[in-house]
Amino acid sequence: MTTESAFIGLMRAIAFDPASRGLLDDCAVLSIGSEHLILTHDMMAEGVHWLSNADPADVAWKLVASNLSDLAAKGARPLGVLLGFMLGEDPWDRQFADGLKEVLVRFDVPLLGGDTVANRGDKRALGLTAIGLATFVPVPARTGAQIGDLVYVTGTLGDALAGFELIEAGFDEMGILADAYNRPEPRLHEGQLLAPFVHAMMDVSDGLLLDAERLASASKVGIAINLAQIPLSDAYVSYRGDALESRMQAASWGDDYQLLFAIQPEVDVPVTATLIGRVVQGAGLFLFDGDQQLPLPPTLGYQH
Amino acid sequence: MTTESAFIGLMRAIAFDPASRGLLDDCAVLSIGSEHLILTHDMMAEGVHWLSNADPADVAWKLVASNLSDLAAKGARPLGVLLGFMLGEDPWDRQFADGLKEVLVRFDVPLLGGDTVANRGDKRALGLTAIGLATFVPVPARTGAQIGDLVYVTGTLGDALAGFELIEAGFDEMGILADAYNRPEPRLHEGQLLAPFVHAMMDVSDGLLLDAERLASASKVGIAINLAQIPLSDAYVSYRGDALESRMQAASWGDDYQLLFAIQPEVDVPVTATLIGRVVQGAGLFLFDGDQQLPLPPTLGYQH
Repeated sequence: MTTESAFIGLMRAIAFDPASRGLLDDCAVLSIGSEHLILTHDMMAEGVHWLSNADPADVAWKLVASNLSDLAAKGARPLGVLLGFMLGEDPWDRQFADGLKEVLVRFDVPLLGGDTVANRGDKRALGLTAIGLATFVPVPARTGAQIGDLVYVTGTLGDALAGFELIEAGFDEMGILADAYNRPEPRLHEGQLLAPFVHAMMDVSDGLLLDAERLASASKVGIAINLAQIPLSDAYVSYRGDALESRMQAASWGDDYQLLFAIQPEVDVPVTATLIGRVVQGAGLFLFDGDQQLPLPPTLGYQH
Repeated sequence: MTTESAFIGLMRAIAFDPASRGLLDDCAVLSIGSEHLILTHDMMAEGVHWLSNADPADVAWKLVASNLSDLAAKGARPLGVLLGFMLGEDPWDRQFADGLKEVLVRFDVPLLGGDTVANRGDKRALGLTAIGLATFVPVPARTGAQIGDLVYVTGTLGDALAGFELIEAGFDEMGILADAYNRPEPRLHEGQLLAPFVHAMMDVSDGLLLDAERLASASKVGIAINLAQIPLSDAYVSYRGDALESRMQAASWGDDYQLLFAIQPEVDVPVTATLIGRVVQGAGLFLFDGDQQLPLPPTLGYQH
């Protein structure tokens, strides 16, 4: 199969418009008069992004939340979504519609349109386009982190990983950990508060380490992350402890949907977030446990 | 399987924002400052919208062209597209990328972004979101046709049907008929010229009769179509003649991507188009062959 990075390479050769940001960002930024429109499209597929026995309402929630998380990283206010839906059987489709309504009401986002396509018995694929309006210009990007910046992340990491494991093991009523996996909360409010202050920002969807490396690469700097400072929830620590191995896993798994940002040390951070590292000279990711540098693990996160 | 109309019914209960136009139109119309953004999302699936042995470049062309056709019906100028792509094997993916470049260059539309998803051996599904800017306000809709309006269609009908049949029969080098099926030309220029003058407009993607009935229904009027006036190309007539049966088929098949519009009789039509009927009292579609009224065929077009 063509790899994601190979195909994106083909697309970069086509995407010459500045609004595409060279496909190096999570969103396109399109100027309309004096406004800046933020556009993102994410797909999800059965067996890849959700288990076949998943609650359809959770699938709808995650499809919307993952796209809104991209808008959050731009400090955008959502204007609406368009849905691409592969038709299937009742009650799945009806439960999906119920979940869609729930998540759209929860984040006050209108459904604007979309399309359906017949299903010939294959696994389903769904697509969602989210449109938002920038609340601050310049719109935060992955580029722009500067040497000396501090690196923060909102919320806690690893909860979705723990939730996924518990669901796979049959403990699907595990409260906040399963919720973290099934019903992530895009950090829209935090993104809007942060947008005027950050040098660079992105959402953590494929694992903190992988996404931090992407931010470093886009900004052409190094980022040093201290695993000892990775924020873990009480529930996560109860489940798998807070030893180095546990922190490494929490930092290498996807689906967190937190915001990762680089900001000048002099700035008061306007949201609740944890200092986890700093921007340094060099290229790529540098990993520490306190003062001790660690080798990078073979995989930094979830590669699609 | 849930029907398209049943699922759209579920979605209508969610889509309360006026920008969604009640999901009764091909596009959403979103006001951004003093501008009006036109948004549409179409999906295509292997085995439904394209044959497994189709040229991947043609698939890319049609995916883009069908979305641009929706923008054309709003008189919109395209601003860009977002692609949802299910990864597969080389050389399919590379040929798709080549075709995507070709169609985007042809219609001068930037690729803004998108997403890829892994494929677990299933038939592929692709999605495209097209964003345009209205060139005239009010933006044309399916609603608004008035009794006494004349009904026109651009171009010729049935060529894509003939092309599809020829391709299926192995005659895949049949020139303009196969091209009409594989590489439809969205009527962007015509749509922009028409937007200030029409009472109602839509693109013909699912068959003239079905789409004319939808326009009549949205406008709460009747539309009388005279099959004797259906525009046919020389190539189509050479292939299957111009008898009533042939005209009926040309008017009942999808993939034409022409513009259907209702306009006051006093207005000079600013594009090349064929007068095919008029807006009348009543509800739905009335079919004529000259002066003789015909019963409606059991299916008016392509129901997804």
